[in-house]
Amino acid sequence: MNNHTRIPVGVLGASGYVGRELLRLLAGHPGASVAFATAATAAGETVDGVQLVRVEDAPFHRAEIVFSCLPHGVSGRFVHEARAAGRRAIDLSADFRLSPEAVYGLTEFARPEVAGAALVANPGCYPTAALLALLPLAQQDLIDPSREVVIDAASGVTGAGRNPTRELLFGEVAEDYRAYAAGNSHRHLPELRAALARQGGFTGDLVFTPHLLPVKRGILETIHVPLARVLDQATAEGLYGVAYDGEPCVRVFRDSLPSLKDVVYRNRVALGVVAVRDVRRPRLTVVAAIDNLVKGAAGQAVQNMNVMVGLPETTGLAC
Amino acid sequence: MNNHTRIPVGVLGASGYVGRELLRLLAGHPGASVAFATAATAAGETVDGVQLVRVEDAPFHRAEIVFSCLPHGVSGRFVHEARAAGRRAIDLSADFRLSPEAVYGLTEFARPEVAGAALVANPGCYPTAALLALLPLAQQDLIDPSREVVIDAASGVTGAGRNPTRELLFGEVAEDYRAYAAGNSHRHLPELRAALARQGGFTGDLVFTPHLLPVKRGILETIHVPLARVLDQATAEGLYGVAYDGEPCVRVFRDSLPSLKDVVYRNRVALGVVAVRDVRRPRLTVVAAIDNLVKGAAGQAVQNMNVMVGLPETTGLAC
Amino acid sequence: MNNHTRIPVGVLGASGYVGRELLRLLAGHPGASVAFATAATAAGETVDGVQLVRVEDAPFHRAEIVFSCLPHGVSGRFVHEARAAGRRAIDLSADFRLSPEAVYGLTEFARPEVAGAALVANPGCYPTAALLALLPLAQQDLIDPSREVVIDAASGVTGAGRNPTRELLFGEVAEDYRAYAAGNSHRHLPELRAALARQGGFTGDLVFTPHLLPVKRGILETIHVPLARVLDQATAEGLYGVAYDGEPCVRVFRDSLPSLKDVVYRNRVALGVVAVRDVRRPRLTVVAAIDNLVKGAAGQAVQNMNVMVGLPETTGLAC
Amino acid sequence: MNNHTRIPVGVLGASGYVGRELLRLLAGHPGASVAFATAATAAGETVDGVQLVRVEDAPFHRAEIVFSCLPHGVSGRFVHEARAAGRRAIDLSADFRLSPEAVYGLTEFARPEVAGAALVANPGCYPTAALLALLPLAQQDLIDPSREVVIDAASGVTGAGRNPTRELLFGEVAEDYRAYAAGNSHRHLPELRAALARQGGFTGDLVFTPHLLPVKRGILETIHVPLARVLDQATAEGLYGVAYDGEPCVRVFRDSLPSLKDVVYRNRVALGVVAVRDVRRPRLTVVAAIDNLVKGAAGQAVQNMNVMVGLPETTGLAC
Repeated sequence: MNNHTRIPVGVLGASGYVGRELLRLLAGHPGASVAFATAATAAGETVDGVQLVRVEDAPFHRAEIVFSCLPHGVSGRFVHEARAAGRRAIDLSADFRLSPEAVYGLTEFARPEVAGAALVANPGCYPTAALLALLPLAQQDLIDPSREVVIDAASGVTGAGRNPTRELLFGEVAEDYRAYAAGNSHRHLPELRAALARQGGFTGDLVFTPHLLPVKRGILETIHVPLARVLDQATAEGLYGVAYDGEPCVRVFRDSLPSLKDVVYRNRVALGVVAVRDVRRPRLTVVAAIDNLVKGAAGQAVQNMNVMVGLPETTGLAC
Repeated sequence: MNNHTRIPVGVLGASGYVGRELLRLLAGHPGASVAFATAATAAGETVDGVQLVRVEDAPFHRAEIVFSCLPHGVSGRFVHEARAAGRRAIDLSADFRLSPEAVYGLTEFARPEVAGAALVANPGCYPTAALLALLPLAQQDLIDPSREVVIDAASGVTGAGRNPTRELLFGEVAEDYRAYAAGNSHRHLPELRAALARQGGFTGDLVFTPHLLPVKRGILETIHVPLARVLDQATAEGLYGVAYDGEPCVRVFRDSLPSLKDVVYRNRVALGVVAVRDVRRPRLTVVAAIDNLVKGAAGQAVQNMNVMVGLPETTGLAC
Repeated sequence: MNNHTRIPVGVLGASGYVGRELLRLLAGHPGASVAFATAATAAGETVDGVQLVRVEDAPFHRAEIVFSCLPHGVSGRFVHEARAAGRRAIDLSADFRLSPEAVYGLTEFARPEVAGAALVANPGCYPTAALLALLPLAQQDLIDPSREVVIDAASGVTGAGRNPTRELLFGEVAEDYRAYAAGNSHRHLPELRAALARQGGFTGDLVFTPHLLPVKRGILETIHVPLARVLDQATAEGLYGVAYDGEPCVRVFRDSLPSLKDVVYRNRVALGVVAVRDVRRPRLTVVAAIDNLVKGAAGQAVQNMNVMVGLPETTGLAC
Repeated sequence: MNNHTRIPVGVLGASGYVGRELLRLLAGHPGASVAFATAATAAGETVDGVQLVRVEDAPFHRAEIVFSCLPHGVSGRFVHEARAAGRRAIDLSADFRLSPEAVYGLTEFARPEVAGAALVANPGCYPTAALLALLPLAQQDLIDPSREVVIDAASGVTGAGRNPTRELLFGEVAEDYRAYAAGNSHRHLPELRAALARQGGFTGDLVFTPHLLPVKRGILETIHVPLARVLDQATAEGLYGVAYDGEPCVRVFRDSLPSLKDVVYRNRVALGVVAVRDVRRPRLTVVAAIDNLVKGAAGQAVQNMNVMVGLPETTGLAC
């Protein structure tokens, strides 16, 4: 496939961890070529063969699809500019995730809508893992709404971005581990609740507590689900197996649980389930792992682009 | 204080991570001197100034107090030998933690019993953190027994011991994170349940899921507690403040949560609480951090020794 | 390209770090397909879609090219079996690196010989970095033979293999750093000396000291070269620029030095040079970085395979 | 020992890594009490039981000895203020290390001068390790001045301070390793050269290349020394054994080399030597390890304070 048949794309905000990961994935993508990329502080530099310009100078007309990796609150304005220039857009910030303007791009659950979308809101990293873990149960009405779903999530530091702050220094993070945004105060929670209600019909209680891991990339969520009826281990595994049969970017583990090394550098969610013993009310623990920069951000964005332009869904992606 | 006034102690099993930590603490303890230490593979070597012998050659008569850091299943036999030789003993294995032969040495909740004990079962690392987090609530009957307490715990690798196995290699653990013994299958759970029932009157459900962290030492437990009645943030903090007022080895955080770096190399549990918003049933999240080798093992053993021999409780310990 | 046009290859010893990396690279290679793979302990398991068999059961006839990632001392025998079955072979162990039977496969300096080889000895990880750093100087007779070349090399732990030993446990390696095989006792040194003499005409003294880094992958070598005549910074950079002009897997840095993150997961050596100030005799410091599992092992093996079968040299490789 | 007999000390600049380590050591020191401590951004906070004030408000009259952990270029002014107030001072910055105003406080080589000093310049971390490794050879005229001493040094990130910069983020440092200030451009080099000349009579060439390690603390220097005459392994070890016989803070390894874990959290330099084989000119490799925050900074400062006030030299220090 030569450049004449490649889809020209633009990348807004290419100097952060997500932007760089997106450039890396696009560099190896046989069906896309990067027409332009922007970066605030690094304008003039070249990353993965692409010369960076200022976002104010973005030549939208050169691209068919525009990705935005700009920060929340900033992204919306430039995505609107891209749209005004007639371009289809995939926004990786949170700016459109609760907006009716955009299709919520959890690919596995929104293929037809994504295929025709002018604007895709790429899901957040924590919600991506949680939704892929919970929707199969929610869609079968298996979650007991009278008890809480408890989600303890742990993320590598690239999830916190590349701006220098003391608390993200190596000297602070190495050999440490901590909870943050405890007490349901994380900004991803409304997005997660909205998608669970819309796509799973679930409106029960969630207790969501993220943690900061001393690793570069990867999210692992340990999700404790109160069940409306008993599921034994085999039935639970079977339910996930059926739900994701044929899905190229979902891997259901049997008799073992996934860990970060099963997913890093891959556009994959890995899922494992354990029926909990010795509790008087039925309960299932689901473990979901993703690479926060790939399936949790840049990889899922490329997956969505592939769907939007009619390419095989995993083109350019290691799943 | 010179050697003539120091209490002679013996250490069984000094070559693992716990045994070495115990030797390190005893080397800096002004009221104790190590009369002997044993090690299976390292007999003949010298660690922190102590020459190691084989456990079969342990000269029990030289010590007043014998610590055992031998593995579960092996420790019991040699602790019985020490007792038969008339020595008081502190067992750091799990062999006596469910036995009426021994006092369960969670120091803060068992001072009088420990003071007079001939045999102390030093608590496990996970239960130590969980009990110090849950007992203040349990003793006030604040835990709703109709819903589960969910404990997600994460431990550094020294908690898994020093025997070489592939899954503990640096190449496997670094940049990874994983759950293990999910589904309430961890061997510490019966110990935790027994102590919660005995000392807190709590017999409700627990869901306990340990995880392996890519750090050398430290345990952080995120504990989600269903409450029998609403506790606001200030009341919850106040309850812990009162419960541990004057305790030298417990630190209650206000308006922030502890992390591993608040506790490593210290004989301290650090506790923080967060009232959870937006849930329809009252619930509190408690975060507890300890150093698994110190307050979770060797440090608490020294704390117990201090109580047993009438020394100030924190002698030789940084809390 | 479909499977009918892919070259069938076999992999001996696929359960170690190098073998797994090779399977990973081959899984993404558009011109090769894995006909079989062997593993001692994991026979029966499936890795990257390939089912593993015992090495004694290797069906050599199914492959055109056989890679061996077996341990030193074991590999030779099975490579001979593959050759006896008429297969071309690439041996990643040290067994043929000093043997006239094989072509020494430092690709950039041996393309014609590799293209026609029946047996390629894939270079060791440390020598690959050192040779690509030193040969441009040696071939121009720029190294002063009356003073020593000093090489301080640091490697991530995957270079030490995947067999469990205490000294490679996470609890031992994390937060540590150490020299090993100091005093010119590393087994890679004869290989390095032989190649420097053969391909660079250099027979002067080397002082080679490897170190163990607390990272998973990557080698960085800091090489201090006594010069036969003064080279200023621009001239030194220019010399490397000319030497590697057009080389797809060599990247020469200007005005900065490479680090591990410039090379991990890439089949690339990155080189940087610094003229040393304030010394009375001319001297250059060269920094060379590679991924020990890619350009230092499995990647270079694939690069050599590409040359052997006439594919573009970087097919299936991110450089 | 009660507070009435403790020496009151002040700490300028207590919020960085060195300042915090100093407070930690002083908190456990039986012969000193912290009368005041200053911090730019954290004024008002309490660290290890000491309330921080602004440096402009430092009550010098309350302290007998003033430590300064202020940055280079800033420290000098406030140390002069402390001196003007009649206080003895220990400066941990570089501001006085080349000045005749101060005693250069490499304790093992300057006890009498330190004992009587009004102002001690505490040595830099890299020079401390290098000098303790090289002075025994230099003082015996064993270093061949016609060839270079090559020092490759690697430091944990706390050596680079606690100010947030992108290059010190966990996401950048973890799994990375790099040289910096190559080409003899590190600012510690003049200090090292001056001390080697003054205390060892050595004025030959040095090639010094520091590296950044992905660990929190610790420095390891691999030092290649050209010898004026052959030293076999036993003689070399013996020479260091004699040089440091009875030194409480120096540990000479025999038949093995030290690593970071032998020195972290200790006020100790650990040294090992290896005679290099197969080189035509005599050469010795010396490995020196220290904790950059302890023997490389705060610990050596306390060691110097002990000498200045006549306390046993290791009071309050784990060596």
